[in-house]
Amino acid sequence: MAIEISAFAWVPPFAQGHVKDIRPRWALAEAGLDYKVHLVAGDHANSAEYRSWQPFGQVPAYRDDKVELFESGAILLHISGKAPALTPRDAQEEAQTRAWLFGALNSIEPKVDNLVIPAVFHPGEAWIEGFRPVAESRLDMRLTALSNWMKERDWLTGRFGVADIAMATVLRDVQNEPILKRHPRLTAYLERCLARSAFDQALQAQMRTFAENAPPEVAQDS
Amino acid sequence: MAIEISAFAWVPPFAQGHVKDIRPRWALAEAGLDYKVHLVAGDHANSAEYRSWQPFGQVPAYRDDKVELFESGAILLHISGKAPALTPRDAQEEAQTRAWLFGALNSIEPKVDNLVIPAVFHPGEAWIEGFRPVAESRLDMRLTALSNWMKERDWLTGRFGVADIAMATVLRDVQNEPILKRHPRLTAYLERCLARSAFDQALQAQMRTFAENAPPEVAQDS
Repeated sequence: MAIEISAFAWVPPFAQGHVKDIRPRWALAEAGLDYKVHLVAGDHANSAEYRSWQPFGQVPAYRDDKVELFESGAILLHISGKAPALTPRDAQEEAQTRAWLFGALNSIEPKVDNLVIPAVFHPGEAWIEGFRPVAESRLDMRLTALSNWMKERDWLTGRFGVADIAMATVLRDVQNEPILKRHPRLTAYLERCLARSAFDQALQAQMRTFAENAPPEVAQDS
Repeated sequence: MAIEISAFAWVPPFAQGHVKDIRPRWALAEAGLDYKVHLVAGDHANSAEYRSWQPFGQVPAYRDDKVELFESGAILLHISGKAPALTPRDAQEEAQTRAWLFGALNSIEPKVDNLVIPAVFHPGEAWIEGFRPVAESRLDMRLTALSNWMKERDWLTGRFGVADIAMATVLRDVQNEPILKRHPRLTAYLERCLARSAFDQALQAQMRTFAENAPPEVAQDS
């Protein structure tokens, strides 16, 4: 069986380009591996069949001829083991790759989410004004630590790898927030990541899925 | 070099038993591996030396004769590769172990943190009353999905492993919240995890560190 990843057939414009299947799409493009897309639409996310593959009903999930799994971090790790361009070159690089993959998804992403999600999903609710400075200060602590790590480094580990894919997709969600601009070393790092042609391929591939599956009323608008 | 993990020398009572070095301590106890503890106190967390090992200045960090790394999830993965009792038995079990490790730390822990951290670190702030039901509803969605996954399963994958260590330490932080009690399958799963003697060894070991390093005024109180 070819490599297959799941992706939403369509999402509203504000989320387009930011859905997490961009992570395996990017890694697979870096690796030069082809893949099929398993579309998730309507009630399929809640079906017993899909939940047995992706228990939370989200995307991406992944399968190939040997394994099936979910969670973009775990999928990135799995792809890194299949693709020499992304495989850590020794035990220490492997350890640091895993450390920074969890660092991106456990130590930084939740802080990014707390800054950006309230305004999107809870606009106008009374608590978000008081919560925002708290979320900002917690994220800023982590960005400061990350910026210190990036002194004299181009990538999180010795060379570009799946940890950078995770971190770049996380930082990209605050790309236009003042908080990221206060850390020029991180904006430069993010630009360096996003300048890779594999990122562009991944982004275009995700956008193409949405264009091909836009609901009729949306397709008519454009 | 023996295995060494970092741990705070002392934390206030509300956090004792819940600091994240309990994860590698638990895994190492399951594996029957000895370790030394590198104590973090005072300014050491902010020193260049410690930050080169743990960039966020947190615990745990880990090193042995081959590698050094940080992030409890990555450390758990590393330990699972050294210990037959925790090593996945085939490629699919390895894939699911990684998936659930990220599932615990990326899909569930941030939701748990949003429920429990505000009351601890921001008591009395105006926003926490409005935020709490939002945090509760987001966590409940994930717990419902997890509970469905645990139907007819004792452990997250085919046998007890590091993903269960991560998940149990996450669920334990809401052990006394009504939200967990609404999911009896998860309270039973948590009890099953915490009944393991290796968990008790890990908990006692963390508490012993704090007892041995209590500040003078605290030591006198007890």
